[in-house]
Amino acid sequence: MTNRISQKLNDTAELIERELDRYFFVGDKKYQILFDSVRYSVLGGGKRIRPFLTMEFCKMFGGSEQSALPYACAVEAVHTYSLIHDDLPCMDNDDFRRGKPTNHKVYGENTALLAGDALLTHAFNILAENKYTSAKNIINAVKMLSANAGMYGMVGGQQLDLIGETTKYDLDTLKYQQKLKTGKLIITACVFGCMAAVDDIELKDERIISAVKYGENIGLAFQIVDDILDVGEEEHKTTFLTHMDIENAHKYAAQLTNEACKVIVKYKNNEILCELAAYLLNRKN
Amino acid sequence: MTNRISQKLNDTAELIERELDRYFFVGDKKYQILFDSVRYSVLGGGKRIRPFLTMEFCKMFGGSEQSALPYACAVEAVHTYSLIHDDLPCMDNDDFRRGKPTNHKVYGENTALLAGDALLTHAFNILAENKYTSAKNIINAVKMLSANAGMYGMVGGQQLDLIGETTKYDLDTLKYQQKLKTGKLIITACVFGCMAAVDDIELKDERIISAVKYGENIGLAFQIVDDILDVGEEEHKTTFLTHMDIENAHKYAAQLTNEACKVIVKYKNNEILCELAAYLLNRKN
Repeated sequence: MTNRISQKLNDTAELIERELDRYFFVGDKKYQILFDSVRYSVLGGGKRIRPFLTMEFCKMFGGSEQSALPYACAVEAVHTYSLIHDDLPCMDNDDFRRGKPTNHKVYGENTALLAGDALLTHAFNILAENKYTSAKNIINAVKMLSANAGMYGMVGGQQLDLIGETTKYDLDTLKYQQKLKTGKLIITACVFGCMAAVDDIELKDERIISAVKYGENIGLAFQIVDDILDVGEEEHKTTFLTHMDIENAHKYAAQLTNEACKVIVKYKNNEILCELAAYLLNRKN
Repeated sequence: MTNRISQKLNDTAELIERELDRYFFVGDKKYQILFDSVRYSVLGGGKRIRPFLTMEFCKMFGGSEQSALPYACAVEAVHTYSLIHDDLPCMDNDDFRRGKPTNHKVYGENTALLAGDALLTHAFNILAENKYTSAKNIINAVKMLSANAGMYGMVGGQQLDLIGETTKYDLDTLKYQQKLKTGKLIITACVFGCMAAVDDIELKDERIISAVKYGENIGLAFQIVDDILDVGEEEHKTTFLTHMDIENAHKYAAQLTNEACKVIVKYKNNEILCELAAYLLNRKN
């Protein structure tokens, strides 16, 4: 099972890479460094979990690969921008990401800042230029991505993360912070798969509600597993291990994973997404 | 004439202020500092030239104020984000803007970075949530703003600006840089006015083509006047005064202003926009 899902993840990652390479093409050579910086971060790395979620939700609900790709790439562009800005000296000040020097280490802080801005902005261009979905879906997708990635979503979560460096959070606040910082973009990726599959889908459609619940559960589980894998790395920060021991943390993540699968079990072809949830729970990095 | 246009600018600025106050409401108090930071920059300042352009193009083409406001606020949010990021230490490292300490001086670099990200992201939310325009217009507006503000537009211009700190540009490259950095957002503001006025307007509609030309001309004139007003402030950078003396620079800006007015003279009620162009040419700050 793990082999099948690893293979599927790799295949999707290759496909996404090719699409992102097209979307983030090198423009005017007069400022080539900006394109180099953007492409350094958006290409050639990452497990592409979010695009995978979009692709697989789309397939589960009978949609084509082609219609899911723009949605998947838009989410990945936003994810990449958030990593670049998060790594900056004024934020986490990280020198390495996925074994490579961080963007600002290679291109300088100023270009890294702009590369993040460019990725975020272009994500909306990718959504709006999508020829394989309905106008209603495009507008709902822009609404959803801008809401979930913005100050009432992901950016808010990053602010909470900053505040958390000097403040201890109780478990509820920690869960809330994680929901904003990572959960909402994961949820967006899942919902985008539904939009890619069904033209003019209503936001209250049962399939979208299932995608939100699935995304919410695996998003939180993902973060708990992250905290377990990073144990001891950030001792000043509140993590799930501030509130429970490793064994109970893993148990909690397993529960959430189970919940996620239960939500989608009623749909035909739910197996891949259940396998993904289990794979994320049991990953070693 | 100057009095009339000043009064109109003030009236519009007040209206825009009220709308932005609504759009950028304070969310969860747990991370109040982010909202404070966003609101510090987006409220209470600036001539609101870009929103004014949107409002007046909309009125000239028979549209209502209500339909223009979301378009106008989205452009102003993007403009504000660009100022916050531009002022950061890794960019221009400015301590003051419009007589007030810059955002990062008050809220710290990390929150200022996030406030910029939040403003950019929320601009797309404002466009997509616009209830007073057609779906086709919303999608075209998202396409246009994301293209003109992104790496092939404004962000590209900012990268060229960075490169220009150590490289001398010839006049054509300088004009090109200015077109990307400030021109494209000004053009967007003008075109958004057309969209606000006319549902399902085609991008090749003669009114949009006029708005693009008008915006292009006043955008360049605006930058030349800026360079004249800032003379001596940034001696290491290429400006229009690197390539011509003040008298010729002013003559060139006057020519462009004249061109801008010629483009719209055929439309009824073009007077305000002509007055604005003249006002911008003759401004003293």
